[in-house]
Amino acid sequence: MDTTLLGALEAGGTKMVCATGYGDGTVVEQISLPTTTPEETMTEVAAWFADKGVAAIGIGAFGPTAVNPASPRYGQILETPKTAWRYFDMLGSVISRLDVPCGYDTDVNVACLGEVTFGCAKGLTDVVYLTIGTGIGAGVLSGGKLMHGMMHPEAGHIRVLPDPRDPIAHNSACPYHTNCFEGLVAGPAIAKRWDGKSGGEMAEDAEAMDLLAGYLGQALATYILCYSPQKIIIGGGVADHTPIVELSRAKTAEWLNNYIATPEMHDLDNYIVNNSLEGKQGIMGCLELARQALEG
Amino acid sequence: MDTTLLGALEAGGTKMVCATGYGDGTVVEQISLPTTTPEETMTEVAAWFADKGVAAIGIGAFGPTAVNPASPRYGQILETPKTAWRYFDMLGSVISRLDVPCGYDTDVNVACLGEVTFGCAKGLTDVVYLTIGTGIGAGVLSGGKLMHGMMHPEAGHIRVLPDPRDPIAHNSACPYHTNCFEGLVAGPAIAKRWDGKSGGEMAEDAEAMDLLAGYLGQALATYILCYSPQKIIIGGGVADHTPIVELSRAKTAEWLNNYIATPEMHDLDNYIVNNSLEGKQGIMGCLELARQALEG
Repeated sequence: MDTTLLGALEAGGTKMVCATGYGDGTVVEQISLPTTTPEETMTEVAAWFADKGVAAIGIGAFGPTAVNPASPRYGQILETPKTAWRYFDMLGSVISRLDVPCGYDTDVNVACLGEVTFGCAKGLTDVVYLTIGTGIGAGVLSGGKLMHGMMHPEAGHIRVLPDPRDPIAHNSACPYHTNCFEGLVAGPAIAKRWDGKSGGEMAEDAEAMDLLAGYLGQALATYILCYSPQKIIIGGGVADHTPIVELSRAKTAEWLNNYIATPEMHDLDNYIVNNSLEGKQGIMGCLELARQALEG
Repeated sequence: MDTTLLGALEAGGTKMVCATGYGDGTVVEQISLPTTTPEETMTEVAAWFADKGVAAIGIGAFGPTAVNPASPRYGQILETPKTAWRYFDMLGSVISRLDVPCGYDTDVNVACLGEVTFGCAKGLTDVVYLTIGTGIGAGVLSGGKLMHGMMHPEAGHIRVLPDPRDPIAHNSACPYHTNCFEGLVAGPAIAKRWDGKSGGEMAEDAEAMDLLAGYLGQALATYILCYSPQKIIIGGGVADHTPIVELSRAKTAEWLNNYIATPEMHDLDNYIVNNSLEGKQGIMGCLELARQALEG
């Protein structure tokens, strides 16, 4: 086993998860720090890593952020509603403080990488990792490579057809879109629709779950048509604490209506799945990103 | 210049375009044959190529078809409504008759490859090529590779929100989906909505064009969110003979509502464009595929 100690930083909008570990995905130490101002937060992050002796760090950052190394803004947070972080040089701030090789990608891409390297998508080349929590985002592996392109996918914001039973279908929690998937299904949408409750608190409400699973199934049908993935893995608080992933399978099949005829479509239990790494898919993906950064 | 003669076969559901040419995209000879039964059609195709002396052939086939070389069905047409062609071994039938190295992909992927190699997307790594004709399909380049995955994208069949002005919004021309993009915008949908007319025949009807461009803009917004492409190129009869590509730019911006903040979004005239190779993008992509097949 390679005993080179690696660093992992899951840079989220509400907390920073810092960890050390190895290239085989083993996590040695881990802490969580609140995300406040960039200066304060990154000083604390750097202080934690300072005496750990990590050889490289993999960073998974909240978006939108510039992940293409050729971009003049590479490593910066882009036009986020968190104005203090707008255009903050996340990658540069880690490198300048800790001076080790760093890998940099979105939080959802690193979670996808974690599942592909260590989890239930091991060996696959085309995978969608979807997180449904405070927001909705997708990390995508296509042809063995994490998808970037112009920026990176923002697939949580695709429009969905409103369910006629849904009282807030035209009163989305997304400030940009009247009826996008995130605006109707992420945590704030659930709270808005059901008296401030969380997904987990609504998990026993069959009608609520059916509604959310219907939107999820609709979005998954779109992702299957667009990405043709070999597997779809779903994480995030809303997905982890409700039965919507399980319920979405039949909905996805209804939306596709037998149009896609592949063996995978006859085995949706193994095609649309919950995350397999007990919430560590992001950190483990960061370790893999660090390992790749070290390899150059 | 490399003077190795290459073959190109655009295998469509209504016609087969056969051509010879060079690795620089130059077309030497070209014919079009009607698509009838597999046996008859492929015998004619092979007869045309027999005395040309091509060193390799690039094939772009109508879908759904198996394009992953690791698939046991690689090179076969899959579950198409054209029942005579279902499970026909397209690639095998060319190799057995002509015995040269062959490259094989979908018709839309080779058109995408043509635009990336010779056309307006030269040098880009993330590109969507959309065709709007008898059907709607998307070829996708992601990270420099044509997207395959489980099968290949079938992005023409994504659901769209019905336009309240549209009398057939719940009476789609797609046999699978009540309101998918193809079912509302492809040639048969136009014919169904407007007394058997073609896209070109409706091109002067401002209201019709506004309706179609709205659906196109909605679909493009979804593709931008899902694929994060550096450019979107649109071909096919409906797009070529109407102003919908031009009209869709403002609609796309409306659907996205400033959520994606990149330089490309401020230059939609160069981001969402008509095809640049005068209808030859498919054949030229086949030539590039043949060149790659020869390189091994």
